[in-house]
Amino acid sequence: MQALRVEEKGVAVREIEKPQRADEALVRVIVSGICNTDLEIARGYAGFQGTIGHEFVGVVEQCPDRSLVGHRVVGEINAGCGKCALCLAGDPRHCPTRTVLGIVGRDGAHAEYLQLPVTNLLTVSSRIPDEHAVFIEPLAAALAIRERISLSKQTRLAVIGDGKLGLLCAQALALSGAQLLLIGKHPEKLRIAERLGIETALVAPAEKRVREFDVVVEASGAAEGFALALKLLHPRGTLVLKSTFHGATEINTAQIVVDEISIVGSRCGRFGPALDLLKKGAIDLDSLISEEYPLSKAVFALERANQKGVLKVLLRP
Amino acid sequence: MQALRVEEKGVAVREIEKPQRADEALVRVIVSGICNTDLEIARGYAGFQGTIGHEFVGVVEQCPDRSLVGHRVVGEINAGCGKCALCLAGDPRHCPTRTVLGIVGRDGAHAEYLQLPVTNLLTVSSRIPDEHAVFIEPLAAALAIRERISLSKQTRLAVIGDGKLGLLCAQALALSGAQLLLIGKHPEKLRIAERLGIETALVAPAEKRVREFDVVVEASGAAEGFALALKLLHPRGTLVLKSTFHGATEINTAQIVVDEISIVGSRCGRFGPALDLLKKGAIDLDSLISEEYPLSKAVFALERANQKGVLKVLLRP
Repeated sequence: MQALRVEEKGVAVREIEKPQRADEALVRVIVSGICNTDLEIARGYAGFQGTIGHEFVGVVEQCPDRSLVGHRVVGEINAGCGKCALCLAGDPRHCPTRTVLGIVGRDGAHAEYLQLPVTNLLTVSSRIPDEHAVFIEPLAAALAIRERISLSKQTRLAVIGDGKLGLLCAQALALSGAQLLLIGKHPEKLRIAERLGIETALVAPAEKRVREFDVVVEASGAAEGFALALKLLHPRGTLVLKSTFHGATEINTAQIVVDEISIVGSRCGRFGPALDLLKKGAIDLDSLISEEYPLSKAVFALERANQKGVLKVLLRP
Repeated sequence: MQALRVEEKGVAVREIEKPQRADEALVRVIVSGICNTDLEIARGYAGFQGTIGHEFVGVVEQCPDRSLVGHRVVGEINAGCGKCALCLAGDPRHCPTRTVLGIVGRDGAHAEYLQLPVTNLLTVSSRIPDEHAVFIEPLAAALAIRERISLSKQTRLAVIGDGKLGLLCAQALALSGAQLLLIGKHPEKLRIAERLGIETALVAPAEKRVREFDVVVEASGAAEGFALALKLLHPRGTLVLKSTFHGATEINTAQIVVDEISIVGSRCGRFGPALDLLKKGAIDLDSLISEEYPLSKAVFALERANQKGVLKVLLRP
């Protein structure tokens, strides 16, 4: 089968063997989505080699649980050991020996087939098209912010970053009723949020709103987004770190102490609530899809996903 | 009067005019304590020029509230505008236009006299000796951690740093009943905590306790303390930043996101609860006093306070 592989020398689409663990489900990928994490792994930042990709929707072809065969599914990307306290409590997202689809110790979704434990799979309602279902993982990650902080109608909230993660976070958090401002650098991307009734601002005017916000979500992935967030937060405000920066970031820790800021890291979310939102059509995903390519063109597709102005790029095996 | 001044060219004890604002209390300083923040300001890190020092106990000599004259007092160091929402709620610690004794826009305590608003002053019980009362500010700062996070007997808690701040934090937090470990580099300083029944460890063995702690308090003021804290915390653990580092610190933000760590900045505390503890004799302060000098020798005293192995250095006008 074809798969997009990260190797020592770079990325390439290779012909590899179809996976064949009998204890896991075999999923034929219908469509997969390119995430910024894929781009980082392709650059060698995560030390992962193998098939990348963790956003997908597919059809179960083989499975220890026969009742799933033929069903359309998405899959939670963390596969725990099943034995530690966290796994036994039903949340393998922080299992210390977990594998993560296309990220840690497990081949991923930019391939004709992938494997995951049966417990990771969720069937997808026929009301959700493939091109929406493929967004389940980043949408769940956006919703995960609300597992970590509480928001109300009184909360003055800013999201920094108008890329696909920022636009998803803004939509997911707008549902909380908080007083939301999305801050970005690209008028054409901000317009996507504006059309949905979300207030937006370019960085230059936003920068003047010093100490106005209770919560700021950093979803730009740039160190300057971190610095802007510290500027916008009032004392004892909360900075949610949603995107990772490459390597070490220079941080003004004195301001964190003097203004008693809280910083909260946020990563993967639960798929269940995200599926419910997709079923209701509560999130505009069509505006977030820029381009689609066959899997055979995946190297070019990665390059496209890396261009400014390009949002989600999909791959179809 | 004599005062320890930070000037463009460095620090010096100068003869300056006695302060004389009629709307504030005039306090004759009995004894003042040298804090690491003083050392940082002396190095030019905070952009403050004037009389430094913010830890003191003194006697009120003049005061708009005549009933305070002659009383022994300590003083909260943040003087708010009195008009903003924070000040009106009785907490000027984050007033955006506050002055801070010996730190921001207000001459400090390493002097024969200082001034503070009457509302900042608290009288000191005769049961508390001067040499304990002078610790009120850093002890309140240590207790302030509990305003920001909740601790229980189940909490696995580490304090990093065996300097005067770390030793005070460890003592203040031990009262919570949490399972506490104090981590430091100096066996002789760790022994002070051990004598009080606090478990301690040197950095090398502590470093092996990867992901064992729910809460880690960084009180070493060193960037490597921050890195060690991230190592010791389990996923979704909390890092309390108690001390500031000079300038920017390189931080591995990816780990904060992947492990969903919370970072909580903590600064000044309330003097009331700290005074209660001092009255009970619940904190061992005598072990934290290394040396005492007359104010005229303050420049030498600063040098001493900067030496390894030296804990609190007191100044007496």
